[in-house]
Amino acid sequence: MNMHVAENGYFTEEHSAETVIARMHDCKDARLKQVMEVVIRKLHEAVKEIEPSEAEWLDAIRFLTATGQICNEWRQEWILFSDILGVSMLVDAINHRKPNGASESTVLGPFHVADAPEMPMGANICRDGKGEDMLVTGRILDPDGQPVEGARIDVWQANDEGFYDVQQKGIQPDFNLRGVFVTGDDGRYWFRAVKPKFYPIPDDGPVGQLLRAMGRHPYRPAHLHYIVSAPGYANLVTHIFDPHDPYIRSDAVFGVKESLLADFQRVDDAERARELGFAGSWFWSVTHDFVLARSS
Amino acid sequence: MNMHVAENGYFTEEHSAETVIARMHDCKDARLKQVMEVVIRKLHEAVKEIEPSEAEWLDAIRFLTATGQICNEWRQEWILFSDILGVSMLVDAINHRKPNGASESTVLGPFHVADAPEMPMGANICRDGKGEDMLVTGRILDPDGQPVEGARIDVWQANDEGFYDVQQKGIQPDFNLRGVFVTGDDGRYWFRAVKPKFYPIPDDGPVGQLLRAMGRHPYRPAHLHYIVSAPGYANLVTHIFDPHDPYIRSDAVFGVKESLLADFQRVDDAERARELGFAGSWFWSVTHDFVLARSS
Ligand SMILES: [Fe+2]
Ligand SMILES: [Fe+2]
Repeated sequence: MNMHVAENGYFTEEHSAETVIARMHDCKDARLKQVMEVVIRKLHEAVKEIEPSEAEWLDAIRFLTATGQICNEWRQEWILFSDILGVSMLVDAINHRKPNGASESTVLGPFHVADAPEMPMGANICRDGKGEDMLVTGRILDPDGQPVEGARIDVWQANDEGFYDVQQKGIQPDFNLRGVFVTGDDGRYWFRAVKPKFYPIPDDGPVGQLLRAMGRHPYRPAHLHYIVSAPGYANLVTHIFDPHDPYIRSDAVFGVKESLLADFQRVDDAERARELGFAGSWFWSVTHDFVLARSS
Repeated sequence: MNMHVAENGYFTEEHSAETVIARMHDCKDARLKQVMEVVIRKLHEAVKEIEPSEAEWLDAIRFLTATGQICNEWRQEWILFSDILGVSMLVDAINHRKPNGASESTVLGPFHVADAPEMPMGANICRDGKGEDMLVTGRILDPDGQPVEGARIDVWQANDEGFYDVQQKGIQPDFNLRGVFVTGDDGRYWFRAVKPKFYPIPDDGPVGQLLRAMGRHPYRPAHLHYIVSAPGYANLVTHIFDPHDPYIRSDAVFGVKESLLADFQRVDDAERARELGFAGSWFWSVTHDFVLARSS
Protein backbone atom coordinates (compact mmCIF):
# COMPACT_ATOMS: atom_id res chain seq x y z
CA MET A 1 0.00 0.00 0.00
CA ASN A 2 1.37 3.36 -1.04
CA MET A 3 0.28 5.54 1.89
CA HIS A 4 1.43 8.68 0.11
CA VAL A 5 -1.09 7.98 -2.66
CA ALA A 6 -3.83 7.32 -0.14
CA GLU A 7 -3.06 10.25 2.12
CA ASN A 8 -3.06 13.05 -0.42
CA GLY A 9 -6.78 12.37 -0.42
CA TYR A 10 -7.22 12.17 -4.20
CA PHE A 11 -9.11 9.22 -5.62
CA THR A 12 -7.45 6.48 -7.65
CA GLU A 13 -9.07 3.21 -8.67
CA GLU A 14 -5.99 1.29 -7.54
CA HIS A 15 -5.85 2.72 -4.01
CA SER A 16 -9.55 3.41 -3.57
CA ALA A 17 -10.00 1.61 -0.24
CA GLU A 18 -6.79 2.94 1.35
CA THR A 19 -7.79 6.49 0.42
CA VAL A 20 -11.19 6.13 2.11
CA ILE A 21 -9.73 4.35 5.17
CA ALA A 22 -7.00 6.99 5.59
CA ARG A 23 -9.75 9.63 5.87
CA MET A 24 -10.62 8.29 9.36
CA HIS A 25 -7.45 9.73 10.91
CA ASP A 26 -9.49 11.88 13.31
CA CYS A 27 -11.90 9.12 14.38
CA LYS A 28 -12.11 9.01 18.19
CA ASP A 29 -13.97 5.70 18.39
CA ALA A 30 -11.33 2.98 18.03
CA ARG A 31 -13.85 0.15 17.62
CA LEU A 32 -15.90 2.01 14.99
CA LYS A 33 -12.67 2.80 13.13
CA GLN A 34 -11.70 -0.88 13.19
CA VAL A 35 -15.18 -1.97 12.02
CA MET A 36 -15.39 0.65 9.24
CA GLU A 37 -11.89 -0.21 8.04
CA VAL A 38 -13.03 -3.80 7.46
CA VAL A 39 -16.36 -2.68 5.94
CA ILE A 40 -14.61 -0.30 3.51
CA ARG A 41 -11.92 -2.81 2.56
CA LYS A 42 -14.37 -5.67 1.93
CA LEU A 43 -16.83 -3.39 0.12
CA HIS A 44 -14.13 -2.17 -2.28
CA GLU A 45 -12.86 -5.74 -2.76
CA ALA A 46 -16.40 -6.82 -3.61
CA VAL A 47 -16.98 -3.95 -6.07
CA LYS A 48 -13.63 -4.60 -7.77
CA GLU A 49 -14.45 -8.30 -8.13
CA ILE A 50 -18.04 -7.70 -9.29
CA GLU A 51 -17.30 -4.72 -11.55
CA PRO A 52 -20.95 -3.61 -11.45
CA SER A 53 -22.35 -1.63 -14.35
CA GLU A 54 -23.90 1.69 -13.37
CA ALA A 55 -27.36 0.13 -13.88
CA GLU A 56 -26.45 -2.74 -11.51
CA TRP A 57 -25.18 -0.26 -8.92
CA LEU A 58 -28.50 1.59 -9.16
CA ASP A 59 -30.39 -1.72 -8.79
CA ALA A 60 -28.42 -2.31 -5.60
CA ILE A 61 -29.29 1.20 -4.34
CA ARG A 62 -32.97 0.49 -5.03
CA PHE A 63 -32.83 -2.88 -3.24
CA LEU A 64 -31.12 -1.40 -0.16
CA THR A 65 -33.65 1.44 -0.06
CA ALA A 66 -36.69 -0.83 -0.42
CA THR A 67 -35.37 -3.18 2.27
CA GLY A 68 -35.40 -0.35 4.82
CA GLN A 69 -38.67 1.11 3.62
CA ILE A 70 -40.72 -2.05 4.17
CA CYS A 71 -39.60 -2.22 7.82
CA ASN A 72 -42.12 -1.25 10.48
CA GLU A 73 -42.93 -2.10 14.08
CA TRP A 74 -43.70 -5.73 13.12
CA ARG A 75 -41.51 -6.26 10.08
CA GLN A 76 -37.72 -6.26 10.10
CA GLU A 77 -36.59 -6.90 6.53
CA TRP A 78 -32.91 -6.20 7.30
CA ILE A 79 -32.86 -9.00 9.87
CA LEU A 80 -34.42 -11.24 7.21
CA PHE A 81 -31.64 -10.18 4.85
CA SER A 82 -29.06 -11.06 7.50
CA ASP A 83 -30.87 -14.37 8.08
CA ILE A 84 -31.07 -15.55 4.46
CA LEU A 85 -27.40 -14.81 3.82
CA GLY A 86 -26.31 -16.80 6.88
CA VAL A 87 -25.03 -13.69 8.64
CA SER A 88 -27.36 -14.03 11.65
CA MET A 89 -26.18 -17.61 12.19
CA LEU A 90 -22.56 -16.53 11.83
CA VAL A 91 -22.96 -13.74 14.39
CA ASP A 92 -24.69 -16.24 16.69
CA ALA A 93 -21.85 -18.75 16.24
CA ILE A 94 -19.18 -16.12 16.93
CA ASN A 95 -20.92 -14.97 20.11
CA HIS A 96 -21.79 -18.42 21.43
CA ARG A 97 -18.85 -20.67 20.76
CA LYS A 98 -19.38 -23.70 22.98
CA PRO A 99 -16.82 -26.04 24.50
CA ASN A 100 -16.70 -29.54 23.00
CA GLY A 101 -19.65 -31.66 24.09
CA ALA A 102 -21.93 -28.73 24.97
CA SER A 103 -25.14 -28.30 22.98
CA GLU A 104 -24.91 -25.86 20.08
CA SER A 105 -26.94 -22.68 19.71
CA THR A 106 -28.97 -21.39 16.81
CA VAL A 107 -30.91 -18.19 16.08
CA LEU A 108 -33.56 -16.95 18.53
CA GLY A 109 -36.03 -15.95 15.79
CA PRO A 110 -38.69 -13.25 16.05
CA PHE A 111 -41.43 -15.24 17.84
CA HIS A 112 -40.17 -15.57 21.41
CA VAL A 113 -42.52 -14.16 24.07
CA ALA A 114 -41.00 -13.17 27.40
CA ASP A 115 -43.84 -14.01 29.77
CA ALA A 116 -44.95 -17.52 28.80
CA PRO A 117 -46.48 -19.36 31.78
CA GLU A 118 -44.52 -21.83 33.92
CA MET A 119 -46.21 -25.23 33.80
CA PRO A 120 -45.89 -28.48 35.71
CA MET A 121 -43.74 -31.15 34.05
CA GLY A 122 -45.90 -33.15 31.65
CA ALA A 123 -48.31 -30.33 30.81
CA ASN A 124 -49.68 -30.02 27.31
CA ILE A 125 -48.61 -26.72 25.74
CA CYS A 126 -51.20 -27.16 22.97
CA ARG A 127 -54.27 -25.14 24.03
CA ASP A 128 -56.54 -25.68 21.04
CA GLY A 129 -56.34 -29.46 20.51
CA LYS A 130 -55.28 -29.00 16.88
CA GLY A 131 -52.50 -31.03 15.32
CA GLU A 132 -50.86 -34.40 15.81
CA ASP A 133 -50.05 -35.22 19.44
CA MET A 134 -46.41 -35.27 20.41
CA LEU A 135 -44.51 -36.24 23.54
CA VAL A 136 -41.27 -34.32 24.15
CA THR A 137 -38.72 -35.66 26.64
CA GLY A 138 -35.07 -35.26 27.55
CA ARG A 139 -32.52 -34.24 30.15
CA ILE A 140 -30.54 -31.13 31.00
CA LEU A 141 -26.97 -32.19 31.72
CA ASP A 142 -23.75 -30.53 32.86
CA PRO A 143 -20.49 -31.03 30.92
CA ASP A 144 -19.74 -34.13 33.03
CA GLY A 145 -23.05 -35.74 32.07
CA GLN A 146 -24.63 -35.07 35.48
CA PRO A 147 -28.26 -33.82 35.66
CA VAL A 148 -28.81 -30.08 36.21
CA GLU A 149 -31.44 -29.34 38.84
CA GLY A 150 -33.46 -26.12 38.59
CA ALA A 151 -32.83 -25.60 34.90
CA ARG A 152 -35.48 -23.37 33.30
CA ILE A 153 -36.68 -24.60 29.90
CA ASP A 154 -38.59 -22.06 27.82
CA VAL A 155 -40.13 -23.74 24.74
CA TRP A 156 -42.21 -22.45 21.86
CA GLN A 157 -43.22 -23.74 18.45
CA ALA A 158 -45.38 -23.20 15.39
CA ASN A 159 -48.63 -25.18 15.07
CA ASP A 160 -49.42 -27.84 12.50
CA GLU A 161 -50.11 -25.15 9.91
CA GLY A 162 -46.77 -23.42 10.47
CA PHE A 163 -48.03 -20.42 12.48
CA TYR A 164 -47.04 -19.13 15.92
CA ASP A 165 -49.79 -17.90 18.26
CA VAL A 166 -48.56 -14.30 17.92
CA GLN A 167 -49.08 -14.52 14.16
CA GLN A 168 -52.69 -15.65 14.62
CA LYS A 169 -54.07 -13.57 17.49
CA GLY A 170 -57.77 -14.33 17.84
CA ILE A 171 -57.36 -17.58 15.90
CA GLN A 172 -54.98 -19.40 18.25
CA PRO A 173 -55.41 -19.01 22.05
CA ASP A 174 -52.89 -16.74 23.77
CA PHE A 175 -49.71 -18.61 24.74
CA ASN A 176 -50.66 -21.54 22.53
CA LEU A 177 -47.70 -23.90 22.10
CA ARG A 178 -45.53 -22.07 24.65
CA GLY A 179 -44.46 -23.09 28.12
CA VAL A 180 -41.77 -22.86 30.77
CA PHE A 181 -40.65 -25.94 32.73
CA VAL A 182 -38.17 -26.28 35.59
CA THR A 183 -36.16 -29.46 36.14
CA GLY A 184 -36.04 -31.44 39.38
CA ASP A 185 -32.96 -33.21 40.72
CA ASP A 186 -33.03 -35.78 37.90
CA GLY A 187 -32.54 -33.03 35.30
CA ARG A 188 -35.39 -34.51 33.27
CA TYR A 189 -38.04 -32.60 31.37
CA TRP A 190 -41.16 -33.75 29.59
CA PHE A 191 -44.19 -32.10 28.14
CA ARG A 192 -46.90 -32.69 25.58
CA ALA A 193 -47.27 -30.73 22.37
CA VAL A 194 -48.13 -31.21 18.69
CA LYS A 195 -45.87 -31.95 15.77
CA PRO A 196 -44.65 -28.62 14.37
CA LYS A 197 -44.70 -27.87 10.66
CA PHE A 198 -42.30 -26.07 8.34
CA TYR A 199 -43.18 -22.44 7.64
CA PRO A 200 -42.07 -19.64 5.30
CA ILE A 201 -40.27 -16.52 6.42
CA PRO A 202 -42.09 -13.37 5.21
CA ASP A 203 -41.37 -13.43 1.47
CA ASP A 204 -43.56 -10.67 0.05
CA GLY A 205 -40.81 -8.03 0.25
CA PRO A 206 -37.40 -7.32 -1.30
CA VAL A 207 -35.78 -10.25 0.56
CA GLY A 208 -38.41 -12.66 -0.79
CA GLN A 209 -37.73 -11.34 -4.30
CA LEU A 210 -34.02 -11.87 -3.80
CA LEU A 211 -34.61 -15.42 -2.51
CA ARG A 212 -36.63 -16.28 -5.61
CA ALA A 213 -34.04 -14.69 -7.91
CA MET A 214 -31.37 -16.82 -6.20
CA GLY A 215 -33.46 -19.94 -6.94
CA ARG A 216 -34.25 -20.46 -3.24
CA HIS A 217 -37.46 -21.11 -1.27
CA PRO A 218 -38.50 -19.26 1.92
CA TYR A 219 -39.12 -22.27 4.19
CA ARG A 220 -37.73 -23.17 7.58
CA PRO A 221 -37.91 -26.90 8.43
CA ALA A 222 -40.11 -27.91 11.38
CA HIS A 223 -38.50 -27.20 14.76
CA LEU A 224 -39.06 -26.58 18.46
CA HIS A 225 -37.44 -23.52 20.06
CA TYR A 226 -35.66 -23.81 23.39
CA ILE A 227 -34.03 -21.37 25.78
CA VAL A 228 -32.39 -23.36 28.57
CA SER A 229 -30.96 -21.45 31.52
CA ALA A 230 -29.59 -22.44 34.90
CA PRO A 231 -27.47 -20.59 37.47
CA GLY A 232 -23.77 -21.22 36.81
CA TYR A 233 -24.31 -22.14 33.17
CA ALA A 234 -24.30 -20.20 29.90
CA ASN A 235 -27.78 -19.58 28.48
CA LEU A 236 -28.55 -21.89 25.58
CA VAL A 237 -30.75 -20.54 22.77
CA THR A 238 -31.42 -23.30 20.29
CA HIS A 239 -33.88 -25.44 18.32
CA ILE A 240 -34.37 -29.11 17.73
CA PHE A 241 -35.25 -30.08 14.17
CA ASP A 242 -37.18 -32.85 12.52
CA PRO A 243 -34.65 -34.58 10.23
CA HIS A 244 -37.45 -35.90 8.02
CA ASP A 245 -38.71 -32.43 7.16
CA PRO A 246 -38.61 -31.75 3.39
CA TYR A 247 -36.60 -28.57 4.00
CA ILE A 248 -34.13 -29.96 6.55
CA ARG A 249 -31.13 -29.46 4.23
CA SER A 250 -32.29 -26.10 2.92
CA ASP A 251 -33.43 -24.00 5.91
CA ALA A 252 -33.96 -20.52 4.45
CA VAL A 253 -32.05 -19.00 7.42
CA PHE A 254 -29.36 -21.73 7.79
CA GLY A 255 -30.45 -22.46 11.38
CA VAL A 256 -29.86 -26.22 11.15
CA LYS A 257 -26.72 -27.73 12.68
CA GLU A 258 -26.10 -31.46 12.53
CA SER A 259 -26.14 -31.75 16.34
CA LEU A 260 -29.63 -30.21 16.51
CA LEU A 261 -31.34 -32.99 14.59
CA ALA A 262 -33.68 -34.93 16.87
CA ASP A 263 -35.44 -38.19 16.25
CA PHE A 264 -39.16 -37.54 15.78
CA GLN A 265 -40.62 -41.06 15.99
CA ARG A 266 -44.16 -42.17 15.37
CA VAL A 267 -45.34 -44.41 18.25
CA ASP A 268 -48.30 -46.72 17.51
CA ASP A 269 -49.27 -47.62 21.07
CA ALA A 270 -52.92 -46.98 21.93
CA GLU A 271 -52.49 -47.74 25.64
CA ARG A 272 -49.51 -45.41 26.05
CA ALA A 273 -51.43 -42.76 24.10
CA ARG A 274 -54.37 -43.11 26.49
CA GLU A 275 -52.04 -42.91 29.53
CA LEU A 276 -50.65 -39.67 28.14
CA GLY A 277 -54.18 -38.29 27.70
CA PHE A 278 -53.97 -38.25 23.91
CA ALA A 279 -57.25 -38.85 22.04
CA GLY A 280 -55.80 -40.96 19.22
CA SER A 281 -54.19 -44.37 19.16
CA TRP A 282 -50.73 -43.13 18.19
CA PHE A 283 -48.50 -40.11 18.77
CA TRP A 284 -45.14 -38.61 17.88
CA SER A 285 -42.29 -38.87 20.34
CA VAL A 286 -39.07 -36.88 20.36
CA THR A 287 -36.32 -36.98 22.94
CA HIS A 288 -33.29 -34.69 23.13
CA ASP A 289 -30.76 -34.05 25.88
CA PHE A 290 -29.08 -30.66 26.25
CA VAL A 291 -25.60 -30.24 27.68
CA LEU A 292 -25.06 -26.78 29.20
CA ALA A 293 -21.64 -25.10 29.15
CA ARG A 294 -20.48 -23.66 32.48
CA SER A 295 -20.68 -19.87 32.46
CA SER A 296 -17.32 -18.19 32.16
CA MET B 1 -13.21 -25.73 0.58
CA ASN B 2 -14.94 -28.91 1.63
CA MET B 3 -17.97 -28.97 -0.65
CA HIS B 4 -19.42 -31.95 1.16
CA VAL B 5 -19.62 -29.88 4.34
CA ALA B 6 -21.22 -27.01 2.46
CA GLU B 7 -23.66 -29.07 0.44
CA ASN B 8 -25.33 -31.03 3.20
CA GLY B 9 -26.86 -27.65 3.95
CA TYR B 10 -26.11 -27.63 7.69
CA PHE B 11 -24.48 -24.55 9.17
CA THR B 12 -20.91 -24.50 10.46
CA GLU B 13 -18.95 -21.41 11.44
CA GLU B 14 -15.96 -22.62 9.43
CA HIS B 15 -17.80 -23.16 6.14
CA SER B 16 -20.51 -20.56 6.64
CA ALA B 17 -20.04 -18.76 3.31
CA GLU B 18 -19.68 -21.93 1.21
CA THR B 19 -22.88 -23.31 2.71
CA VAL B 20 -24.84 -20.18 1.78
CA ILE B 21 -23.29 -19.97 -1.70
CA ALA B 22 -23.98 -23.66 -2.42
CA ARG B 23 -27.68 -22.95 -1.78
CA MET B 24 -27.86 -21.07 -5.12
CA HIS B 25 -27.60 -24.29 -7.17
CA ASP B 26 -30.99 -23.62 -8.80
CA CYS B 27 -30.34 -19.96 -9.62
CA LYS B 28 -31.21 -19.30 -13.26
CA ASP B 29 -29.63 -15.84 -13.42
CA ALA B 30 -25.90 -16.41 -13.96
CA ARG B 31 -24.93 -12.78 -13.34
CA LEU B 32 -26.97 -12.53 -10.12
CA LYS B 33 -25.41 -15.79 -8.94
CA GLN B 34 -21.94 -14.42 -9.61
CA VAL B 35 -22.72 -11.13 -7.85
CA MET B 36 -24.33 -12.80 -4.82
CA GLU B 37 -21.43 -15.24 -4.50
CA VAL B 38 -19.06 -12.30 -4.11
CA VAL B 39 -21.47 -10.45 -1.79
CA ILE B 40 -21.87 -13.51 0.46
CA ARG B 41 -18.15 -14.33 0.51
CA LYS B 42 -17.09 -10.76 1.33
CA LEU B 43 -19.88 -10.33 3.89
CA HIS B 44 -18.84 -13.47 5.75
CA GLU B 45 -15.17 -12.47 5.54
CA ALA B 46 -16.08 -9.09 7.02
CA VAL B 47 -18.16 -10.59 9.86
CA LYS B 48 -15.40 -13.09 10.68
CA GLU B 49 -12.81 -10.32 10.81
CA ILE B 50 -15.01 -7.90 12.79
CA GLU B 51 -16.52 -10.51 15.15
CA PRO B 52 -19.46 -8.20 15.99
CA SER B 53 -21.19 -8.56 19.33
CA GLU B 54 -24.92 -9.15 19.08
CA ALA B 55 -25.47 -5.52 20.17
CA GLU B 56 -23.18 -4.31 17.37
CA TRP B 57 -25.03 -6.47 14.85
CA LEU B 58 -28.31 -4.91 16.01
CA ASP B 59 -26.77 -1.42 15.71
CA ALA B 60 -25.91 -2.30 12.10
CA ILE B 61 -29.48 -3.49 11.47
CA ARG B 62 -30.80 -0.19 12.88
CA PHE B 63 -28.41 1.86 10.74
CA LEU B 64 -29.33 -0.03 7.56
CA THR B 65 -33.03 0.36 8.32
CA ALA B 66 -32.80 4.09 9.08
CA THR B 67 -30.77 4.71 5.91
CA GLY B 68 -33.62 3.36 3.80
CA GLN B 69 -36.34 5.01 5.83
CA ILE B 70 -35.06 8.57 5.39
CA CYS B 71 -35.10 8.17 1.59
CA ASN B 72 -37.86 9.94 -0.34
CA GLU B 73 -38.41 11.49 -3.75
CA TRP B 74 -35.75 14.12 -3.05
CA ARG B 75 -33.40 12.35 -0.68
CA GLN B 76 -31.31 9.28 -1.52
CA GLU B 77 -29.38 8.35 1.63
CA TRP B 78 -28.08 5.06 0.15
CA ILE B 79 -26.38 6.95 -2.67
CA LEU B 80 -24.86 9.22 -0.01
CA PHE B 81 -23.65 6.09 1.81
CA SER B 82 -22.11 4.82 -1.43
CA ASP B 83 -20.58 8.27 -1.98
CA ILE B 84 -18.94 8.72 1.42
CA LEU B 85 -17.36 5.27 1.33
CA GLY B 86 -15.83 5.90 -2.11
CA VAL B 87 -18.02 3.25 -3.74
CA SER B 88 -19.69 5.66 -6.18
CA MET B 89 -16.30 6.87 -7.37
CA LEU B 90 -15.07 3.29 -7.68
CA VAL B 91 -18.10 2.27 -9.77
CA ASP B 92 -17.55 5.39 -11.91
CA ALA B 93 -13.88 4.52 -12.36
CA ILE B 94 -14.66 0.90 -13.34
CA ASN B 95 -17.24 2.00 -15.90
CA HIS B 96 -15.25 4.88 -17.39
CA ARG B 97 -11.66 3.73 -17.66
CA LYS B 98 -10.03 6.18 -20.07
CA PRO B 99 -7.07 5.67 -22.35
CA ASN B 100 -3.87 7.46 -21.36
CA GLY B 101 -4.07 11.17 -21.98
CA ALA B 102 -7.87 11.37 -22.00
CA SER B 103 -9.55 13.50 -19.30
CA GLU B 104 -10.71 11.55 -16.26
CA SER B 105 -14.31 11.27 -15.09
CA THR B 106 -15.83 11.85 -11.68
CA VAL B 107 -19.31 11.44 -10.18
CA LEU B 108 -22.32 13.10 -11.82
CA GLY B 109 -23.88 14.18 -8.49
CA PRO B 110 -27.57 14.79 -7.86
CA PHE B 111 -27.90 18.35 -9.21
CA HIS B 112 -27.73 17.93 -12.99
CA VAL B 113 -30.77 19.29 -14.88
CA ALA B 114 -31.46 17.86 -18.32
CA ASP B 115 -32.90 20.89 -20.09
CA ALA B 116 -30.50 23.73 -19.32
CA PRO B 117 -30.52 26.36 -22.10
CA GLU B 118 -27.93 26.48 -24.88
CA MET B 119 -26.09 29.81 -24.80
CA PRO B 120 -23.74 31.67 -27.13
CA MET B 121 -20.06 31.32 -26.30
CA GLY B 122 -19.10 33.96 -23.72
CA ALA B 123 -22.53 34.15 -22.05
CA ASN B 124 -22.74 34.69 -18.30
CA ILE B 125 -24.44 31.72 -16.62
CA CYS B 126 -24.92 33.74 -13.45
CA ARG B 127 -28.45 35.17 -13.56
CA ASP B 128 -28.62 36.98 -10.23
CA GLY B 129 -25.34 38.95 -10.18
CA LYS B 130 -24.31 37.43 -6.86
CA GLY B 131 -20.80 36.20 -6.18
CA GLU B 132 -17.30 36.92 -7.43
CA ASP B 133 -17.02 37.15 -11.23
CA MET B 134 -15.18 34.36 -12.98
CA LEU B 135 -14.05 33.74 -16.54
CA VAL B 136 -13.92 30.09 -17.63
CA THR B 137 -12.00 29.10 -20.75
CA GLY B 138 -10.49 26.04 -22.38
CA ARG B 139 -10.48 23.68 -25.34
CA ILE B 140 -12.06 20.38 -26.23
CA LEU B 141 -9.41 18.19 -27.85
CA ASP B 142 -9.20 14.78 -29.44
CA PRO B 143 -6.56 12.23 -28.35
CA ASP B 144 -4.15 13.68 -30.93
CA GLY B 145 -4.47 17.18 -29.48
CA GLN B 146 -6.66 18.42 -32.35
CA PRO B 147 -9.71 20.64 -31.60
CA VAL B 148 -13.11 18.95 -31.55
CA GLU B 149 -15.76 20.92 -33.43
CA GLY B 150 -19.40 20.62 -32.34
CA ALA B 151 -18.64 19.40 -28.84
CA ARG B 152 -21.55 20.04 -26.45
CA ILE B 153 -20.45 21.35 -23.04
CA ASP B 154 -23.08 21.17 -20.30
CA VAL B 155 -21.90 23.05 -17.18
CA TRP B 156 -23.44 23.65 -13.79
CA GLN B 157 -22.20 24.84 -10.41
CA ALA B 158 -23.15 25.93 -6.91
CA ASN B 159 -23.30 29.63 -6.12
CA ASP B 160 -21.02 31.55 -3.76
CA GLU B 161 -22.99 30.26 -0.79
CA GLY B 162 -22.66 26.62 -1.85
CA PHE B 163 -26.20 26.09 -3.18
CA TYR B 164 -27.45 24.92 -6.57
CA ASP B 165 -30.48 26.67 -8.10
CA VAL B 166 -32.64 23.55 -7.61
CA GLN B 167 -31.89 23.67 -3.87
CA GLN B 168 -33.09 27.27 -3.67
CA LYS B 169 -36.14 27.50 -5.90
CA GLY B 170 -37.68 30.97 -5.51
CA ILE B 171 -34.40 32.32 -4.12
CA GLN B 172 -32.15 31.73 -7.12
CA PRO B 173 -33.56 32.27 -10.64
CA ASP B 174 -34.38 29.10 -12.63
CA PHE B 175 -31.32 27.74 -14.47
CA ASN B 176 -29.00 30.00 -12.48
CA LEU B 177 -25.40 28.93 -12.98
CA ARG B 178 -26.20 26.40 -15.71
CA GLY B 179 -25.59 26.51 -19.43
CA VAL B 180 -24.85 24.53 -22.56
CA PHE B 181 -22.19 25.64 -25.07
CA VAL B 182 -21.19 24.16 -28.41
CA THR B 183 -17.67 24.48 -29.78
CA GLY B 184 -16.77 25.88 -33.16
CA ASP B 185 -13.93 24.61 -35.35
CA ASP B 186 -11.26 25.88 -32.94
CA GLY B 187 -12.61 23.57 -30.19
CA ARG B 188 -12.55 26.51 -27.78
CA TYR B 189 -15.12 27.31 -25.11
CA TRP B 190 -15.53 30.29 -22.86
CA PHE B 191 -18.22 31.58 -20.57
CA ARG B 192 -18.66 33.82 -17.58
CA ALA B 193 -19.72 32.59 -14.15
CA VAL B 194 -19.00 33.18 -10.45
CA LYS B 195 -16.50 31.49 -8.20
CA PRO B 196 -18.17 28.38 -6.73
CA LYS B 197 -17.98 27.58 -3.02
CA PHE B 198 -17.57 24.35 -1.11
CA TYR B 199 -20.82 22.86 0.19
CA PRO B 200 -21.91 20.08 2.54
CA ILE B 201 -23.67 16.92 1.42
CA PRO B 202 -26.94 16.40 3.38
CA ASP B 203 -25.67 15.44 6.82
CA ASP B 204 -28.79 15.42 9.00
CA GLY B 205 -29.43 11.69 8.53
CA PRO B 206 -27.77 8.36 9.34
CA VAL B 207 -24.95 8.97 6.85
CA GLY B 208 -24.17 12.34 8.46
CA GLN B 209 -24.06 10.63 11.86
CA LEU B 210 -21.69 8.01 10.49
CA LEU B 211 -19.47 10.71 8.96
CA ARG B 212 -19.20 12.49 12.32
CA ALA B 213 -18.55 9.22 14.16
CA MET B 214 -15.73 8.51 11.68
CA GLY B 215 -14.23 11.93 12.48
CA ARG B 216 -15.07 13.28 9.02
CA HIS B 217 -16.73 16.48 7.74
CA PRO B 218 -19.51 16.58 5.09
CA TYR B 219 -17.94 19.11 2.68
CA ARG B 220 -17.19 18.89 -1.02
CA PRO B 221 -14.49 21.30 -2.24
CA ALA B 222 -15.56 23.99 -4.74
CA HIS B 223 -15.99 22.67 -8.28
CA LEU B 224 -17.62 23.15 -11.67
CA HIS B 225 -19.53 20.26 -13.21
CA TYR B 226 -19.06 19.36 -16.88
CA ILE B 227 -20.64 16.89 -19.27
CA VAL B 228 -18.77 17.02 -22.56
CA SER B 229 -20.16 15.08 -25.49
CA ALA B 230 -19.36 14.94 -29.20
CA PRO B 231 -20.23 12.45 -31.94
CA GLY B 232 -17.56 9.76 -32.18
CA TYR B 233 -16.29 10.34 -28.62
CA ALA B 234 -17.12 8.83 -25.23
CA ASN B 235 -19.23 11.10 -23.03
CA LEU B 236 -17.16 12.75 -20.32
CA VAL B 237 -18.83 13.43 -16.96
CA THR B 238 -16.43 15.30 -14.74
CA HIS B 239 -15.64 18.33 -12.54
CA ILE B 240 -12.84 20.80 -12.29
CA PHE B 241 -11.75 21.68 -8.76
CA ASP B 242 -10.22 24.67 -7.07
CA PRO B 243 -6.94 23.35 -5.61
CA HIS B 244 -6.93 26.15 -3.01
CA ASP B 245 -10.21 25.04 -1.48
CA PRO B 246 -9.87 24.15 2.23
CA TYR B 247 -11.44 20.73 1.56
CA ILE B 248 -9.54 19.85 -1.62
CA ARG B 249 -7.76 16.89 0.05
CA SER B 250 -10.81 15.70 1.94
CA ASP B 251 -13.78 15.72 -0.46
CA ALA B 252 -16.54 13.94 1.48
CA VAL B 253 -17.35 11.86 -1.63
CA PHE B 254 -13.76 11.33 -2.90
CA GLY B 255 -14.58 13.03 -6.22
CA VAL B 256 -11.19 14.74 -6.57
CA LYS B 257 -8.58 13.28 -8.91
CA GLU B 258 -5.22 14.94 -9.33
CA SER B 259 -5.85 15.56 -13.06
CA LEU B 260 -9.07 17.49 -12.28
CA LEU B 261 -7.33 20.29 -10.36
CA ALA B 262 -7.59 23.54 -12.31
CA ASP B 263 -5.82 26.79 -11.71
CA PHE B 264 -8.28 29.37 -10.36
CA GLN B 265 -6.32 32.63 -10.67
CA ARG B 266 -7.26 36.07 -9.42
CA VAL B 267 -6.76 38.62 -12.22
CA ASP B 268 -6.39 42.27 -11.14
CA ASP B 269 -6.98 44.00 -14.50
CA ALA B 270 -9.73 46.63 -14.45
CA GLU B 271 -9.69 47.15 -18.21
CA ARG B 272 -10.02 43.44 -19.00
CA ALA B 273 -12.78 43.20 -16.37
CA ARG B 274 -14.65 46.02 -18.08
CA GLU B 275 -14.19 44.38 -21.51
CA LEU B 276 -15.72 41.23 -20.06
CA GLY B 277 -18.69 43.16 -18.69
CA PHE B 278 -17.75 42.58 -15.05
CA ALA B 279 -18.66 45.38 -12.62
CA GLY B 280 -15.53 45.12 -10.44
CA SER B 281 -11.88 45.81 -11.16
CA TRP B 282 -10.77 42.18 -10.82
CA PHE B 283 -12.10 38.68 -11.49
CA TRP B 284 -11.24 35.02 -11.21
CA SER B 285 -10.00 33.16 -14.25
CA VAL B 286 -9.80 29.42 -14.74
CA THR B 287 -8.78 27.54 -17.84
CA HIS B 288 -8.99 23.80 -18.43
CA ASP B 289 -8.71 21.69 -21.56
CA PHE B 290 -10.56 18.39 -21.89
CA VAL B 291 -9.31 15.50 -23.99
CA LEU B 292 -12.11 13.21 -25.18
CA ALA B 293 -11.55 9.50 -25.70
CA ARG B 294 -12.79 8.08 -28.98
CA SER B 295 -15.93 6.03 -28.47
CA SER B 296 -15.33 2.31 -28.71
FE1 LIG C 1 -39.35 -20.80 14.59
FE1 LIG D 1 -21.53 19.56 -7.12
